Amino acid sequence: MKIRIMLATFAAVGLAMAADTSLTSLPPAKKTGGKPLMEALAKRQTNRTFATKALPKQTLADLLWAANGVNRPDSGKRTAPSARDRREIDVYALTKDGAFLYMPDEHALKLVNPSDLRVSSGTQEFAHDAPVTLVLVVNRKRQNMGGSGNWWAERLGAIDAGIVSQNISLFAASAKLNSVVLGIFDAKALHASLKLEKESEVHLAQPVGFPPKK
Amino acid sequence: MKIRIMLATFAAVGLAMAADTSLTSLPPAKKTGGKPLMEALAKRQTNRTFATKALPKQTLADLLWAANGVNRPDSGKRTAPSARDRREIDVYALTKDGAFLYMPDEHALKLVNPSDLRVSSGTQEFAHDAPVTLVLVVNRKRQNMGGSGNWWAERLGAIDAGIVSQNISLFAASAKLNSVVLGIFDAKALHASLKLEKESEVHLAQPVGFPPKK
Repeated sequence: MKIRIMLATFAAVGLAMAADTSLTSLPPAKKTGGKPLMEALAKRQTNRTFATKALPKQTLADLLWAANGVNRPDSGKRTAPSARDRREIDVYALTKDGAFLYMPDEHALKLVNPSDLRVSSGTQEFAHDAPVTLVLVVNRKRQNMGGSGNWWAERLGAIDAGIVSQNISLFAASAKLNSVVLGIFDAKALHASLKLEKESEVHLAQPVGFPPKK
Repeated sequence: MKIRIMLATFAAVGLAMAADTSLTSLPPAKKTGGKPLMEALAKRQTNRTFATKALPKQTLADLLWAANGVNRPDSGKRTAPSARDRREIDVYALTKDGAFLYMPDEHALKLVNPSDLRVSSGTQEFAHDAPVTLVLVVNRKRQNMGGSGNWWAERLGAIDAGIVSQNISLFAASAKLNSVVLGIFDAKALHASLKLEKESEVHLAQPVGFPPKK
């Protein structure tokens, strides 16, 4: 009996790996529930202290979907609008288990670095204990508006990053999580360790976690 | 009896006018209710067509508070975070009755131009019938980070405008209103007709209104 279960487990793992070895699936996001919007807005606030407790996988899945997930599967359109629908904001999740790119179409995580980048990102200086730090990156190739140095591309990319950021802040308020929007971090080190394309730019880092125990 | 009521009305109006002749008060915003957050995120979408019907005053009040209202009266902090808490995003409402600046601390409107600027703003090209177009302005003096030409000030201002914009988009989704985020409009004309300070910059225009009748 024990052997049969183990074989079944191996078979399931084998199938998952055959599809894409680098993707980690997430539980489907809950697309109902949460605080009423006006209450989430009333509770929206910055908090810089966190418990170290990890986020449950369901919470992480809901958080990533809220940030920039697909809310219209037929068109792949998102919870966050983007200029000319270029969908140029990439969301990375830094955790103790590594750094992952959120893949909205697959609603899955792609491992990009097995290291814990929370400290090297410089964000832990401001948020020591947060179990996850979301990093918002403007993917200039996908934005396809001329890249950095082009003020119009710069402005629209930053606006679109802000839009995703507020989805995160409101999700945190709704789920009774703490969060803070950080503009200061080691962008150069993050760019390298997230293995970003040359043109891509880290815009924001947003630690999220439970409130510290009192 | 009738005379007494009339006198009382005059007295009330007199008091209101004595406080600030240029302010139009808004009904207090509803800080509860609306769709559950995850549902508002699921419904968030761009719509470019509108009914001409005006927004009820309560809806306009709720919309403006959601966008960038005070959610912690003790500190004046807002539904939208801002870099270094500079609160540099100003929200203007263009309506057929004129253009108004939303004053978050007073939760009131300040008339800045009695003309209907919706057409001259160039936004009506994209949203002919919307009863209100919100215009998001980065107030560089209040931001106090070196003004335009300083890439850091530019980036953080644009991020902060995006944050306010997503509050508007989610409010619209929650209240079954249509909205669209526009980066293209006549920024120079708007700057002049909104009587903005030289350093301030119009970043976004966001028409909001009821869906068109089918």
